[in-house]
Amino acid sequence: MKATAVHVGLIGCGTVGTGVARILLTEKRALREQLGLPLELVRIADLNTRPRKGVPTTPGLLTKSADAVLNDPHIEIVVELVGGLTFAKEVILRAMRSGKHVVTANKALLAAAGPELHAVAQEHNVDLFYEASVAGGIPIIKSLREGFVANRLHAVLGIVNGTCNYILTRMTQDGLEFRAAVREAQRKGYAEANPALDIDGLDARHKLGILASLAFDQWVPQEAIYVEGIRRITKLDIQCAGELGYVVKFLAIARAGERGIELRVHPTLLPQHSMFEGVRDAYNAIEVRGTPIGTTMFYGMGAGMNATSSAVVADIVDIARNVQHPLQKRRPPFMFGAEKQRLLPMANVCTKYFLRCTTLDRPGVIAAISRELGARNIGLTSVILHETARGAYSTILFMTHQAREADVQNALQAIDALPVIKAKTAMLRVETETN
Amino acid sequence: MKATAVHVGLIGCGTVGTGVARILLTEKRALREQLGLPLELVRIADLNTRPRKGVPTTPGLLTKSADAVLNDPHIEIVVELVGGLTFAKEVILRAMRSGKHVVTANKALLAAAGPELHAVAQEHNVDLFYEASVAGGIPIIKSLREGFVANRLHAVLGIVNGTCNYILTRMTQDGLEFRAAVREAQRKGYAEANPALDIDGLDARHKLGILASLAFDQWVPQEAIYVEGIRRITKLDIQCAGELGYVVKFLAIARAGERGIELRVHPTLLPQHSMFEGVRDAYNAIEVRGTPIGTTMFYGMGAGMNATSSAVVADIVDIARNVQHPLQKRRPPFMFGAEKQRLLPMANVCTKYFLRCTTLDRPGVIAAISRELGARNIGLTSVILHETARGAYSTILFMTHQAREADVQNALQAIDALPVIKAKTAMLRVETETN
Repeated sequence: MKATAVHVGLIGCGTVGTGVARILLTEKRALREQLGLPLELVRIADLNTRPRKGVPTTPGLLTKSADAVLNDPHIEIVVELVGGLTFAKEVILRAMRSGKHVVTANKALLAAAGPELHAVAQEHNVDLFYEASVAGGIPIIKSLREGFVANRLHAVLGIVNGTCNYILTRMTQDGLEFRAAVREAQRKGYAEANPALDIDGLDARHKLGILASLAFDQWVPQEAIYVEGIRRITKLDIQCAGELGYVVKFLAIARAGERGIELRVHPTLLPQHSMFEGVRDAYNAIEVRGTPIGTTMFYGMGAGMNATSSAVVADIVDIARNVQHPLQKRRPPFMFGAEKQRLLPMANVCTKYFLRCTTLDRPGVIAAISRELGARNIGLTSVILHETARGAYSTILFMTHQAREADVQNALQAIDALPVIKAKTAMLRVETETN
Repeated sequence: MKATAVHVGLIGCGTVGTGVARILLTEKRALREQLGLPLELVRIADLNTRPRKGVPTTPGLLTKSADAVLNDPHIEIVVELVGGLTFAKEVILRAMRSGKHVVTANKALLAAAGPELHAVAQEHNVDLFYEASVAGGIPIIKSLREGFVANRLHAVLGIVNGTCNYILTRMTQDGLEFRAAVREAQRKGYAEANPALDIDGLDARHKLGILASLAFDQWVPQEAIYVEGIRRITKLDIQCAGELGYVVKFLAIARAGERGIELRVHPTLLPQHSMFEGVRDAYNAIEVRGTPIGTTMFYGMGAGMNATSSAVVADIVDIARNVQHPLQKRRPPFMFGAEKQRLLPMANVCTKYFLRCTTLDRPGVIAAISRELGARNIGLTSVILHETARGAYSTILFMTHQAREADVQNALQAIDALPVIKAKTAMLRVETETN
């Protein structure tokens, strides 16, 4: 039996839902041309049933009842844009169990319950698509699942949180301190009233879990990802990094090496000539490295109604192509290969480090600090002593060779216990192209 | 009838063909996992039948005869990597006419014969895929055809020729003159012994034709694209552009506006903080702008065995998914919508211009040049007069507001006829974010 139209139901109609409904209803003709048959948005469930701006509303389109979508036998694709974990999960599971395909942007849920959702999708032979969950409209999920199919991927890393990137951009370009930059982000609508989910790195951790699971064909649980937010970054850190030729960006990094897969989210120093340097304001960018492809990067807006709704609609169209041909074997939402790689604990990660020490202006200070580093096999590539007024505290910057995280943490404890150290030493990890 | 394996034949086994064969034969297991059934490379046709490095060869795999591929009823997918126009076209047409799907990297052929190939693919209900034809392994074709399906695209522009980007990078970073940079590119294997196809912009024009046809849903013939290569760029141009805060990049630009679609390939000034600034050496990058997506960018290696073979294999896997399900309606290789936009002749394009005039060091020179510009409605945003030794020629740099190409060409003729002008004025077009 060939379909004559594909029917879509939307559950949750906030900002992104409104954008999705607008595209589906106003770009009907263009979508029909692409697809070869009409894509019909037949029902939108949301507690608020007032008409939305730019969304042509017909009687019965808006309903308060999610059941009206989930129990409608004509609806083949359910778009979950409720957000949160509990009700969203129930919606997705019920939809898939009644044979409906699902499109979602819910990164928190995917990061928490990926394998369970994956298993139910496979069992019921339905698609679960989630392009909008990472990096908004940038087709990074499609590229990882399809475009790079011929590759063995080594690393996926990037700026995946627009809020943090906006804050660090303001601190870097306008010399704002962290708090002022957060207020600025809130004023512009880039940060929530409570910005914790973004600035403490939890949002970036969700996204890295999804990206790494796809890139390495194995499930990466949230607990395996080290996370450190941007609260402790100061204007002075950014200035000192600049002096050494680096910019500070908030990076999510997944990298496969001989000892296992590194998984970490933290503020990071990057060389000023890096492609990431040009990623400013609320933009996102994700670098994918593999064999044979080499290094590639994807750049665009990572959030907001526009970018996100573009990705949701692309997923709907992809699924609609499958719906036309019910025989098609579904590509599973996550591919889990047989060979599993070890997930590397943060303590065993090796990278380069930047240290900013605040010390008394006294002879022998550099020697004392260097001794603690050397004793733990941490080599130095540069040391810069800031000129100080007599009697004031000094700032000393250190850049290290590759060193082990546990050794550096240990050295930092020892350094901060030295009597000449006058404030907690600031530490930032460094990414270079040779990492 | 369900397939138990998908059979692939390769015609043309040079550098890229070897890369493709290597992936198909050595990554068999990983590809099978992705696809759910084996992908079998059963025959490779090339005049040279010596075994290739890294390609496990079985008896009968290598043949001199393209017919052995084209007439094999088991082969469902033919990969054309012959290059050139005549024989390659014959191969592709014969394959499609006998119901075989085709993967090609042949941008020259696609740019010349797109509509004809498209028609034959539709008639025989086969796929014609060509991800490798533009920007190597970057999944830009897939993104334009699938990822951005919900968007109306306004512009596609980018660095699509790695050879030219390498040459301009060497001129910018190392202060080489054009000829020396070309020799360097040849030495490194980035430029051919006869580099004309690259440095005169013909390769970039092929690629822009393909990108613009996809982005704007209508066929863009090569003749509609204005092209100007990089031969006339001097070290001095690059230095002067730098003084004004710009870098020189070789850009291919397709942009839809109210008056029609601009189509042009030429060296271009870009602001130093542009994302394109970070695209160095032989890398490519393509910016796609649309509604609702905003601005996105794709970056990676645009050519070479590795990037190109990654794209070819991704296409093979995509088609193999379709082959498994013979009922599937094919997505046509180019989507040509009903509404056509006008293609704007170069003379009517409006952009900003950079002029470098070589003049006698005399009072009234700036006034004389400005008068010619003003008479043709060309406004100025900056004028810089280089300090000169007494008696030497002066260099004067002008940056204009938006102006019409025909007016600028006309003004240049008048300026170069002024008695105070001592050498042909250098002109470069300027792209800014507000273009």
